[in-house]
Amino acid sequence: MNQIEELAKLLGVDASFITDPDITLSYSRDQAPFAQSAPPRAVLLAKNAEQISTTLRFANQHKIPVVTRGAGSGLAGGANSSADSIVISLEKMNQIIDIDTENLIARVEAGVINLDLDTKVKEFGLAYLPDPASRDWSTLGGNAATNAGGMCCVKYGVTSSHVRAAQVVLASGEIIEIGKATKKSVTTYDLLHLFIGSEGTLGIITELTLNLVVRPQPPATMIATFASITDAASAATQLLKFKPSMLEIVDQTTLKAVEAWHPLGFEIAGSVLLMQLDENPHLCEEALSVCRRFNLIDGVYSEDPADSADLIRVRKMAYPALERMGATLLDDVALPINKIAEFVERVEKLSASSGLTIGIFGHAGDGNMHPTIVHDHGDQAAATLAQKVFGEIVAIAQTLGGTASGEHGIGSIKSTMVQSEISETVMNLQREIKRVFDPQLILNPGKKFPL
Amino acid sequence: MNQIEELAKLLGVDASFITDPDITLSYSRDQAPFAQSAPPRAVLLAKNAEQISTTLRFANQHKIPVVTRGAGSGLAGGANSSADSIVISLEKMNQIIDIDTENLIARVEAGVINLDLDTKVKEFGLAYLPDPASRDWSTLGGNAATNAGGMCCVKYGVTSSHVRAAQVVLASGEIIEIGKATKKSVTTYDLLHLFIGSEGTLGIITELTLNLVVRPQPPATMIATFASITDAASAATQLLKFKPSMLEIVDQTTLKAVEAWHPLGFEIAGSVLLMQLDENPHLCEEALSVCRRFNLIDGVYSEDPADSADLIRVRKMAYPALERMGATLLDDVALPINKIAEFVERVEKLSASSGLTIGIFGHAGDGNMHPTIVHDHGDQAAATLAQKVFGEIVAIAQTLGGTASGEHGIGSIKSTMVQSEISETVMNLQREIKRVFDPQLILNPGKKFPL
Repeated sequence: MNQIEELAKLLGVDASFITDPDITLSYSRDQAPFAQSAPPRAVLLAKNAEQISTTLRFANQHKIPVVTRGAGSGLAGGANSSADSIVISLEKMNQIIDIDTENLIARVEAGVINLDLDTKVKEFGLAYLPDPASRDWSTLGGNAATNAGGMCCVKYGVTSSHVRAAQVVLASGEIIEIGKATKKSVTTYDLLHLFIGSEGTLGIITELTLNLVVRPQPPATMIATFASITDAASAATQLLKFKPSMLEIVDQTTLKAVEAWHPLGFEIAGSVLLMQLDENPHLCEEALSVCRRFNLIDGVYSEDPADSADLIRVRKMAYPALERMGATLLDDVALPINKIAEFVERVEKLSASSGLTIGIFGHAGDGNMHPTIVHDHGDQAAATLAQKVFGEIVAIAQTLGGTASGEHGIGSIKSTMVQSEISETVMNLQREIKRVFDPQLILNPGKKFPL
Repeated sequence: MNQIEELAKLLGVDASFITDPDITLSYSRDQAPFAQSAPPRAVLLAKNAEQISTTLRFANQHKIPVVTRGAGSGLAGGANSSADSIVISLEKMNQIIDIDTENLIARVEAGVINLDLDTKVKEFGLAYLPDPASRDWSTLGGNAATNAGGMCCVKYGVTSSHVRAAQVVLASGEIIEIGKATKKSVTTYDLLHLFIGSEGTLGIITELTLNLVVRPQPPATMIATFASITDAASAATQLLKFKPSMLEIVDQTTLKAVEAWHPLGFEIAGSVLLMQLDENPHLCEEALSVCRRFNLIDGVYSEDPADSADLIRVRKMAYPALERMGATLLDDVALPINKIAEFVERVEKLSASSGLTIGIFGHAGDGNMHPTIVHDHGDQAAATLAQKVFGEIVAIAQTLGGTASGEHGIGSIKSTMVQSEISETVMNLQREIKRVFDPQLILNPGKKFPL
């Protein structure tokens, strides 16, 4: 009996434990285009924490790598498996366990889809706020493991601001509770936030206690076109005072891609800002007069929430419009917000010198940009060049006081890019902390940072 | 030359290194009334991170305990020193290094007084929001080390939500940067939040990068009196939908203490709720009609911010009114907010059975209560009983799904009370994490949790 057969026997016949290579292949990677992966030895579609505990205890004993995944919506290769690994998928653990309308918290299994929770709590006039672009198919456990962001985070913060507590299975198989369901607690070290964003390298999150809020008012929406990205980015820093619940920027390259697909009237725009106000919807006119100080070409707004989908259409089309042009490599860096314009200028130079199209859009209010490199499908030389440019974009951000990832995570595609912004001491502290939780280094080894 | 003389020589003549026992005595404890303390062997009034580095390197080598303090405003004995220790005070490191009005961040030395930063940034129309009751004398480094709360946290979150990055000196003397000045970053494990609330046991925070926000509008204020604390607490859960920037509760015992000092007209009230709305000031009338569903006796409000000081006077007088009655022991527990009424009932029974006066007030919107035990000055038997009751109050909170501390910290006075709500596995993880940062266990040993 080989190891996998032995584990299957331990898990019993009730477990969905898959070794068919036709099926395991589809659990071997996330959405990152160029990260290494190989079908794992087996996939557990976990039904409960106990099955995960059994699997980890066994894997720990036999030093078998374990890769955890939610929906596989990640963009950094964080869920990519190696040939010697076991993949644990949380997709079947998708129960909303409790919605507590008095304490304004929800308890969910980690495999619940983000939007499913928000849709459910809407019935009570409540909301789960974090809104990654993947929210209609990504899982809350994956959101926590990567500390996912989204458009509303400029006002409401990223996933880490919305998690109170978690149930976690350690590499040893022990099941523990971290954080506290109360709104405040300083009783232990903040182990909860150590897990959020740890990308499956410290343990497996099986359950989450999440903040709910009274559903915000539908927002007013403003769209403003500027002569240049410098103007739009400068205006963005001045718009934060209106407490936007969305503040997005789109560059000229991306606008041209959108125009080529669906003409929306942005032929002469150098850049576009989109803003939503859910707290002070009546301030759009005042916001527009701020924009006029920065070479505004044109601006429109509507306090009628029904118009918002129309007005933000260009932002929703940004990535699909670039995807139409070829194969894409979507980057993710975070910057000081007053460095956005300089960042875009440098990336434009890199685009010119490399000959690659690079469209830039992102969360202006957070300084979180998504430069997207486009190259011809099937052109291997261009693909190799795009990967090199992907890293150079990260380096530009780091030079400007920015960081390698704002919301997608480090995964496997950036794990060697972080060293230029982290001291060797901090890198070693990470390694030692990992050893505390995972002494055999079985959990997603090599992801997040080089071991 | 003894060890202290040796360290003095290493630090040089420029260092404020004090061994005079008349002076070291005043650096030996914080505001916790019953925690053990003894004057330390020496006190360093640190001027910079390098002096702290030199001191820690030496202490680490010679296994000398080091206790860090800011203003000494803590309430949990977290800054209390032992006779074999060295105290490092950050009070002289009080420079505001930079205010960045574009990226909305401030960089400060850890010894800056909380209110001094807020006063400074007010000039730019900005605010530093966390508002612990001690904010006019507590330091930002101390606020971060304890993860201090305050009244506005019901809306804006505690200190941890307002810190982006920190400079930290490790036990080894190494100086590192954790977190990132950008608004978003998922590049490393969240070491920053591991430090926040770690109460000086993992390293010494020397510098902080803090969130600033556009100054909120002055709030409207409402005060409502109820027949019973159950009514007031039930109403509080329903008032959260108005997004209060303050939601405080005061019990009958405390109201009687206030009335005995300054009659404000609360003779017949069973409890009082105070609410401020800085986002929707026009909703006070609607809030009051919510209160009417819960045996409201009377309610008044004003949308004129100038009236707010008058209206919240009873809350500001709560603790001083109890202090007038005798020696006090101020507790701090956090609860699910729908357990506040049951908690107060149980504490009232404890008050009756022990014969001790216990006034309760606190942050209703967070479920963070401050039961305050009063006994006669100089009555040693009553003081001993009060300490016992202090622990029993924590146990009541834990039984109701609450936690040993919401914002004051565990320090030395609660370090043995946390075990009933934390598994031995989590306790051991804390111990192992401490060893990663502080292998010789010199940093504030025995605080936060038993080693």
